[in-house]
Amino acid sequence: MKLSVGFLGPLGTYTHQAAHEYFQDSAIYNEKRTIAEALKSLEALDYAVVPRENSIFGSVIETFDGLKVLKEGFIQGEVILKIQHCLVVKKGAKFSDIDCVISHEQALGQCRRFLVEKLPGATTSTTASTAAAAETVSKSQTLNIAAICSGICVTMFEDLEILANGIQDQDSNYTRFFIIGKQSEGKPPFKTLRPTHALIRLIPTSSAHKETSFDLTELLKTIDLSVIRLDRRPAPVSHPFLDTYFLEVVLSTQNPSEWPEQVSQSILRLRDKGHLAESIGLW
Amino acid sequence: MKLSVGFLGPLGTYTHQAAHEYFQDSAIYNEKRTIAEALKSLEALDYAVVPRENSIFGSVIETFDGLKVLKEGFIQGEVILKIQHCLVVKKGAKFSDIDCVISHEQALGQCRRFLVEKLPGATTSTTASTAAAAETVSKSQTLNIAAICSGICVTMFEDLEILANGIQDQDSNYTRFFIIGKQSEGKPPFKTLRPTHALIRLIPTSSAHKETSFDLTELLKTIDLSVIRLDRRPAPVSHPFLDTYFLEVVLSTQNPSEWPEQVSQSILRLRDKGHLAESIGLW
Repeated sequence: MKLSVGFLGPLGTYTHQAAHEYFQDSAIYNEKRTIAEALKSLEALDYAVVPRENSIFGSVIETFDGLKVLKEGFIQGEVILKIQHCLVVKKGAKFSDIDCVISHEQALGQCRRFLVEKLPGATTSTTASTAAAAETVSKSQTLNIAAICSGICVTMFEDLEILANGIQDQDSNYTRFFIIGKQSEGKPPFKTLRPTHALIRLIPTSSAHKETSFDLTELLKTIDLSVIRLDRRPAPVSHPFLDTYFLEVVLSTQNPSEWPEQVSQSILRLRDKGHLAESIGLW
Repeated sequence: MKLSVGFLGPLGTYTHQAAHEYFQDSAIYNEKRTIAEALKSLEALDYAVVPRENSIFGSVIETFDGLKVLKEGFIQGEVILKIQHCLVVKKGAKFSDIDCVISHEQALGQCRRFLVEKLPGATTSTTASTAAAAETVSKSQTLNIAAICSGICVTMFEDLEILANGIQDQDSNYTRFFIIGKQSEGKPPFKTLRPTHALIRLIPTSSAHKETSFDLTELLKTIDLSVIRLDRRPAPVSHPFLDTYFLEVVLSTQNPSEWPEQVSQSILRLRDKGHLAESIGLW
């Protein structure tokens, strides 16, 4: 029986591409309209695939805001894709026709320099995904609107062509995607894993009381694992400027078999100090 | 002679309000169209004021992307404002008229729940500032467009009224703003300061070679000061997934007179280990 995978759709998004790279033909793919909906689909599906961070425009805020309140899911893998953005228009449209460029905010952010130099007069408007932008242009009756998206979109939607290719601000443009599995005891993971990474989600409770009493240096000493990435987002509580932290930790010894236990011990140390901490991924 | 201050304009933005709270009547205020232009204005003006982070929607990406390449400026202060968003429309417009809501992406992000619940069919579009959104609505010939902005905007632009007040997702909504002074030797700071905070900008050079060789835990040990906030943005280099880090450090002893020297020593320790590090603020 095939796996069911929810992803940030429609068909033709980079997330679709990443999901296919991981699951190939072993899955049925369910397109979701937003990152939040893709994460919510874990209530019904086996896996969700969402973008995590891009090498030009950084972390994807909507994904981390979803991970703040993630209950059903557990990160089980990561895929890295090379991203090549195109400016896609209605057939026949020229640069001088365009007065509005639409795309996901990440893609607009990755092409800022191109937009300032080549389309300084155009307004920008955000869409839920890059492929949704292509779809909107495809349905438009006028030539004045362009989308930033993957080149594959011109084969998926009607009446489109590529006006410019590789328009991102740096040639080396990569996006990391999280493969998130449903939390379920009896189910074996899709791939047999020897995990070397983990993601720790943490709210430092002490910082609710006094700003300067929270010290990241102390926190990392308590974790006592190699932390290679840290993101913070406002915590889902009413106290202002209290953050949820996401810490990616990585195995630094030669003993992968001990890794899950090392992560568990670290979580226990954090809880002993009063922090709200849990592991939300192991890959 | 009055000081000259560039801020994210136009008049009526929250940044304008923050700038006025800090400099009062001692300054001439110069409105800038974007955060990037406000930072660039330090080439000609004495100070720039830009938003740093909001308690609901987190760090302001455009500000940190500007700080990555900041050359002329040095952060000299911080202002915290309570933010109260309004839904502002053309006089006479009702909820049922609205099919498009415009504002700065931060304000849209702070009112996501309101938009989903009260205007689920409306599209959103980003503007360079909240007050620019109000200005656009003011000039519109139709009733179908609404702005999210400060209530003060209805007194600054014509033909507007407030349709809903306090529409942010949490009642406690605050924004921190950076007060950035021009780097200049002979000039005394606006206020006599006893700084207790600093912002360290850092690119860990070792991570350019091998992903897992970079360890945040090691880095914080080298800094050896209390780190209370950390942000990361993709570094302005072509190597993918190499970050620029911004670390806010805070005095933890009772000796404020030693603080600038403590920060300098920390920077030297970082450079000794091969990192690109400098202090870009002291307040």
